[in-house]
Amino acid sequence: MVDKDITIFMEEREELNEIVFKYAGRGTKRFWNLDSSAYEDGALPAKVKELIGLTASLALCCDECVKYHLLQCHKLGVSTAELEEALHIGLIIGGSITIPHLRRAFKAWDDLKKG
Amino acid sequence: MVDKDITIFMEEREELNEIVFKYAGRGTKRFWNLDSSAYEDGALPAKVKELIGLTASLALCCDECVKYHLLQCHKLGVSTAELEEALHIGLIIGGSITIPHLRRAFKAWDDLKKG
Amino acid sequence: MVDKDITIFMEEREELNEIVFKYAGRGTKRFWNLDSSAYEDGALPAKVKELIGLTASLALCCDECVKYHLLQCHKLGVSTAELEEALHIGLIIGGSITIPHLRRAFKAWDDLKKG
Amino acid sequence: MVDKDITIFMEEREELNEIVFKYAGRGTKRFWNLDSSAYEDGALPAKVKELIGLTASLALCCDECVKYHLLQCHKLGVSTAELEEALHIGLIIGGSITIPHLRRAFKAWDDLKKG
Amino acid sequence: MVDKDITIFMEEREELNEIVFKYAGRGTKRFWNLDSSAYEDGALPAKVKELIGLTASLALCCDECVKYHLLQCHKLGVSTAELEEALHIGLIIGGSITIPHLRRAFKAWDDLKKG
Amino acid sequence: MVDKDITIFMEEREELNEIVFKYAGRGTKRFWNLDSSAYEDGALPAKVKELIGLTASLALCCDECVKYHLLQCHKLGVSTAELEEALHIGLIIGGSITIPHLRRAFKAWDDLKKG
Repeated sequence: MVDKDITIFMEEREELNEIVFKYAGRGTKRFWNLDSSAYEDGALPAKVKELIGLTASLALCCDECVKYHLLQCHKLGVSTAELEEALHIGLIIGGSITIPHLRRAFKAWDDLKKG
Repeated sequence: MVDKDITIFMEEREELNEIVFKYAGRGTKRFWNLDSSAYEDGALPAKVKELIGLTASLALCCDECVKYHLLQCHKLGVSTAELEEALHIGLIIGGSITIPHLRRAFKAWDDLKKG
Repeated sequence: MVDKDITIFMEEREELNEIVFKYAGRGTKRFWNLDSSAYEDGALPAKVKELIGLTASLALCCDECVKYHLLQCHKLGVSTAELEEALHIGLIIGGSITIPHLRRAFKAWDDLKKG
Repeated sequence: MVDKDITIFMEEREELNEIVFKYAGRGTKRFWNLDSSAYEDGALPAKVKELIGLTASLALCCDECVKYHLLQCHKLGVSTAELEEALHIGLIIGGSITIPHLRRAFKAWDDLKKG
Repeated sequence: MVDKDITIFMEEREELNEIVFKYAGRGTKRFWNLDSSAYEDGALPAKVKELIGLTASLALCCDECVKYHLLQCHKLGVSTAELEEALHIGLIIGGSITIPHLRRAFKAWDDLKKG
Repeated sequence: MVDKDITIFMEEREELNEIVFKYAGRGTKRFWNLDSSAYEDGALPAKVKELIGLTASLALCCDECVKYHLLQCHKLGVSTAELEEALHIGLIIGGSITIPHLRRAFKAWDDLKKG
């Protein structure tokens, strides 16, 4: 994932989602909806929810999940300082096995910042 | 953990921390400090950080971690609606294996609310 | 969990579910429904689905999940030989860290068999 | 793994297995045998065992394991409806961190179906 | 596990092992043998292997596994300094979710040291 | 990672570390230091610590971590027999989901041995 730029990542994700929806039953489609709804504005703002999703994804070593929430954080105006503090919590909770994912997270953020 | 009240949980935690510190080397003590610092006010407020810690702990199925962050959330004035939304993200990210921990989380919250 | 009999396990589970539902938002309630529906008869019979759920729960070291699916397997007439083969796959996939959970699974099955 | 076709996946797997066997001691070789035997016909048919292996692999986010069991399911005549229900259970148990793996699973199945 | 002394832990373990062997097929029995053999003296001494098993068990948050390897380390003459360094690596690799298990590990070591 | 040679792996790792340090706060930098110190000679020799790190990394399915500790083991003169025994423990503890990582570990070792 290091070398793929974000446009390619999102295009590939969309293509694969189409294949999922070709096969997915009602249950899986409902899960997709639940997953989207979980990050919408509510008692907690979407920005906080995306930071929560980002950190949990890092702690669970899910590269694509990290990249996706990173993009959402960028869109929602998360600052670099806020992002760094959330990723740091993920590192502390999940330990050194999160480091390869943390490296790719900062690389992706660096790419986003450079536009 | 269902039946233990929060006072007992915190006392036991302190007793065990003392045993850790009897044996811990410099590295482990430093990790303890890092762990505390990660949740202090910064670019993100402590409240948001505790919610992040709570959700990641639930997604990783760590009962004591969930209970600890729940207590911190309560102290910092997190509302029930905010708490529920954060725990819901943990459920979606971590799936049904988080449910036993989610049950105990709401039980602990219920106990805290009843005072 | 070793010493609790199954009636107590199920009662405690129900009590905690009530507390979850006292606090749960629409998303969490929908997840609960999705979770139940996933194990209903379909292209695969419920019995096979419960064995799938049991094995995945063992591989993920979720004690309560194992116990719940074990009960469902018992109700649906899974034989001891079928159960043993499913649990064995969980042991092979998840390795020796599943052994404490495997021990409690066989203990619970033994209790169920003795009535 | 998205772009690699199944022939390449299996060839690479065989090449790496040869390197493992160049170095593996008796214990590791025995584990390999145990692993193969676990999925043979017994009280449960091989087809059910492969579906169990597939779901647990998805819930544990193991891409290669998912792809391997998917191939076995295809060989053993698992229907698309059966496959979808098993993968859905994996999604429910393991949560949204399984989604990147679920996408690649359906992509591989789509490739297998197209021949 | 905090309050149970080591004799009780080992007795309970033996009782449950008997139930496992009442039900276990050939594959599971073979896994049990493989598991024991893996920690025998070889190119690496048993002491190093037990420290490896201890650390990996901590990083994977397996309480019983940690306790079992701790006992073996004690029998094989591991020093407190060696034990502390191994546990510290587990904490660094696995992060703060290992802390509840680390607490119980030091408690058990403390009990062993007191005889 | 199968096809990348070790020089490329280490170069890429260094490049990404630079990006991490561009963004990392004091906490993350301290974690980096703690992580390095954990593997230095102490009561346990560095060689044993790298074997511990290797096995725990395999059991946790962290490819880059495995590769890094493998390199350190090679530098510190770990023999093939010692390496094999440590990896075998990782396989037994973590189960068949570690196999894809074990394959790549032996491939990397084979490359190192060929110089």
